[in-house]
Amino acid sequence: MAKEVTQRSENYSQWYNDLALKADLAEQSAVRGCMVIKPYGYAIWEKMQSVLDGMFKKTGVQNAYFPLFIPKSFFSREAEHVAGFAKECAVVTHHRLKNDPDGKGVIVDPEAKLEEELIVRPTSETIIWSTYKNWIKSWRDLPVLCNQWCNVVRWEMRTRLFLRTAEFLWQEGHTAHATAAEAEAKAQEMVQVYARFAREVMALPVIVGHKSPNERFAGALDTLTIEAMMQDGKALQAGTSHFLGQNFAKSFDVRFTNNEGKEEYVWATSWGVSTRLMGALIMAHGDDNGLVLPPALAPIQVVMVPIYKTQEEREAVLEKMAQLKTGLEALGHSVKVDDRDTLRPGFKFAEWELKGVPVRLAMGARDLAAGTVEVARRDTLEKVTMPLEGIEAHISALLAQIQQSIYDKALAFRDANVEKCDNWEEFKTKIQTGKFLLCHWDGTAETEQAIKDETKATIRCIPVDSYVCEEEGVDIYSGKPSHQRVVFAISY
Amino acid sequence: MAKEVTQRSENYSQWYNDLALKADLAEQSAVRGCMVIKPYGYAIWEKMQSVLDGMFKKTGVQNAYFPLFIPKSFFSREAEHVAGFAKECAVVTHHRLKNDPDGKGVIVDPEAKLEEELIVRPTSETIIWSTYKNWIKSWRDLPVLCNQWCNVVRWEMRTRLFLRTAEFLWQEGHTAHATAAEAEAKAQEMVQVYARFAREVMALPVIVGHKSPNERFAGALDTLTIEAMMQDGKALQAGTSHFLGQNFAKSFDVRFTNNEGKEEYVWATSWGVSTRLMGALIMAHGDDNGLVLPPALAPIQVVMVPIYKTQEEREAVLEKMAQLKTGLEALGHSVKVDDRDTLRPGFKFAEWELKGVPVRLAMGARDLAAGTVEVARRDTLEKVTMPLEGIEAHISALLAQIQQSIYDKALAFRDANVEKCDNWEEFKTKIQTGKFLLCHWDGTAETEQAIKDETKATIRCIPVDSYVCEEEGVDIYSGKPSHQRVVFAISY
Repeated sequence: MAKEVTQRSENYSQWYNDLALKADLAEQSAVRGCMVIKPYGYAIWEKMQSVLDGMFKKTGVQNAYFPLFIPKSFFSREAEHVAGFAKECAVVTHHRLKNDPDGKGVIVDPEAKLEEELIVRPTSETIIWSTYKNWIKSWRDLPVLCNQWCNVVRWEMRTRLFLRTAEFLWQEGHTAHATAAEAEAKAQEMVQVYARFAREVMALPVIVGHKSPNERFAGALDTLTIEAMMQDGKALQAGTSHFLGQNFAKSFDVRFTNNEGKEEYVWATSWGVSTRLMGALIMAHGDDNGLVLPPALAPIQVVMVPIYKTQEEREAVLEKMAQLKTGLEALGHSVKVDDRDTLRPGFKFAEWELKGVPVRLAMGARDLAAGTVEVARRDTLEKVTMPLEGIEAHISALLAQIQQSIYDKALAFRDANVEKCDNWEEFKTKIQTGKFLLCHWDGTAETEQAIKDETKATIRCIPVDSYVCEEEGVDIYSGKPSHQRVVFAISY
Repeated sequence: MAKEVTQRSENYSQWYNDLALKADLAEQSAVRGCMVIKPYGYAIWEKMQSVLDGMFKKTGVQNAYFPLFIPKSFFSREAEHVAGFAKECAVVTHHRLKNDPDGKGVIVDPEAKLEEELIVRPTSETIIWSTYKNWIKSWRDLPVLCNQWCNVVRWEMRTRLFLRTAEFLWQEGHTAHATAAEAEAKAQEMVQVYARFAREVMALPVIVGHKSPNERFAGALDTLTIEAMMQDGKALQAGTSHFLGQNFAKSFDVRFTNNEGKEEYVWATSWGVSTRLMGALIMAHGDDNGLVLPPALAPIQVVMVPIYKTQEEREAVLEKMAQLKTGLEALGHSVKVDDRDTLRPGFKFAEWELKGVPVRLAMGARDLAAGTVEVARRDTLEKVTMPLEGIEAHISALLAQIQQSIYDKALAFRDANVEKCDNWEEFKTKIQTGKFLLCHWDGTAETEQAIKDETKATIRCIPVDSYVCEEEGVDIYSGKPSHQRVVFAISY
């Protein structure tokens, strides 16, 4: 095999990096903390974008674009937001370079200092609400339902490809509504869009729930989240949707005249997912041979590898493969024939396994004579020889089956690793072994913080599906009364 | 009418701004020189992206993503590039804000100064070629054909919506090749992709040609351009494709082993179009009533306005319109029924004219009884009443006809305003009246500069189509020998 992958059991973290790098998804760039997303990785991200964008538009959302830069003073407007966001960020202070009079290079021109520094957006609530002020005057202007696909920058100290990078790509939706109820409904609608996307397209059995007040977005009254379990039992927050109340409307003075002629502040939501989803995809489904891509997101769904000794055999097999390719493409599948003549089939098999292609077809002269083809599934690594007759329809069905099967496997894994826990000593041990623990919580920030300090575990969410457990009990740590169990886990 | 538009004859520049603003395409933001692209404008940009992206992919190009930031030292590597690009740009010098100890706001933390300043990319050749160094070792790794859709920043002093903004959106393709011939062919292929897109999709009859050495991209050996004529006779550079030779490969030490085992530097191209195309679209086709959108780029191709007096009439007309909508959508058209109940039909007509919707259908109770509908074309403002029978196919054909017709009109306008000119005094007068002048040029930068200094006119291109004129003559300014005519114009 050309590229060795670290085994998960040996070093899970190194395994993750190996997959991201060796499957050609991404790499570190020359700029600290910023990654390069390589064509194969970007093709997966494009598929995510395309599906999500269609789902957003069906809910009435339109795309728009707002500035990369935010005046520093905007961050001071919303008190909680400044505390949460305006700290580790990229600050533009000058607008010109000039030739270094003492050398060959360039230096920052001290005369080109900006009057007010600009922050490279870590998120766009402030610049967008300063814009909405001009758009919204009357109830007739509402709702405003905008989304933007863009880059954002948060100056993270420790970075990991996709999971935590200084610059990342995302979408951020920002909506404005006439009533609190309408805004809350929108925040819920969008977290359900994310959950459906995660489950049906990414094959990720996410848990939907509310964040505890401690873990809310800076400036939100409620944060809804989708939480996914990785193969090491850690949680990955895969998307969030916030009900922002009137906080940003008040900070940027966005009022409207309601249909009774009275002035009111506007109600807001925001919601986003990012290239972090790529990290979730790798970690949830990959195995020791490489990526395992759900067919719905695979840039190549079917790869064909010809096996031959002579030039004549090569041509005959490639001709048949070209026919198969046309047939599969007509069914809407993406297909690649790997006709590289300088590499052995075994090398190609390993490469496409590493890259997670769901189905591999291999065919040699004997297959051709017998009218058969070898079909290999990436997820189970099963190989079967099948008749060529009707193979296109079979593969179409197989791809759907693989999609479901990857989901089922992840769901079974999750269910096997979620447990109720009512004993603090047990909690401390189990939480370190990669479990999601359903525990009673007294609802206070103090208890939550104490548990985090002792174990690093946080409340991932107060679930609204999957593991809803509204029952009376006592907090696992404080012993105080509790009304429901919440999901504790150690997270990325 | 709700929104008055300045007439072109009165103030062309103000007319342009009126269209951009009042048709809800874009507006200035709170950040100097940065625009907000509003949903209607962004929907047009998305259509441009979608068509271009498909065209790129057909040529074998894949999308990827490279960092927003470029280390300052990278700009010093390629001598011409630093002179052309590294001057007016956004410079990140710090990575943290902190609470102002003396006040309520935030200040830049002086302790968080970066060791090396980062430049917000004005274009990405340097960061991409520093990456390609890791990707390219052998001839087997070539060609590399990447494109990225992203934002870039150039600190322009005077900005205009879409035409010149500090931040803009664009795509930049960057390819790496084993031979000069292959790279030159790629640069030519991509400028032809742009030309086909401009002509067939934007209905812009562009001229393709080479830039003079003076007007080349900083670091290029050859720059190909598509140049469009606006309605004031000024030229707008709508897209460029560069043959970069081995300049960037040498600056970033990108070598490969060729198939004879020898090491060589890699050959490069880059090519881009930006949201500037939105400006071209507005200025080339708009009229005194507003935008005129080619159907291929119109977010709404057909708008329907119901006319009624009673609620019963309203329902009957809207029911028929819903049927029509379904029929037109089945033919692949985008349709909107404007069922707003608080606005008069005349107001709606004006609004959709301002927004450039290619076809408007109006229908009242009498039409319904008679089985007719009023069909209005945006480009010619013609209205005809037609039978409903077979209307879907008619409108489909009409949209194709409008697309062609907008192109033909722009082409006729251009041809009427391109002239040969061999007299310097005549040149000085005519160039100010909005003409493209085909003149002999001696090939020197000095003459080109002198003409620019006296008249503001520049060589837009040495045409390779439309007006190729290779003939012996004498330079219009210097009187020295010349081998071909070139296109002079005043440009945006």
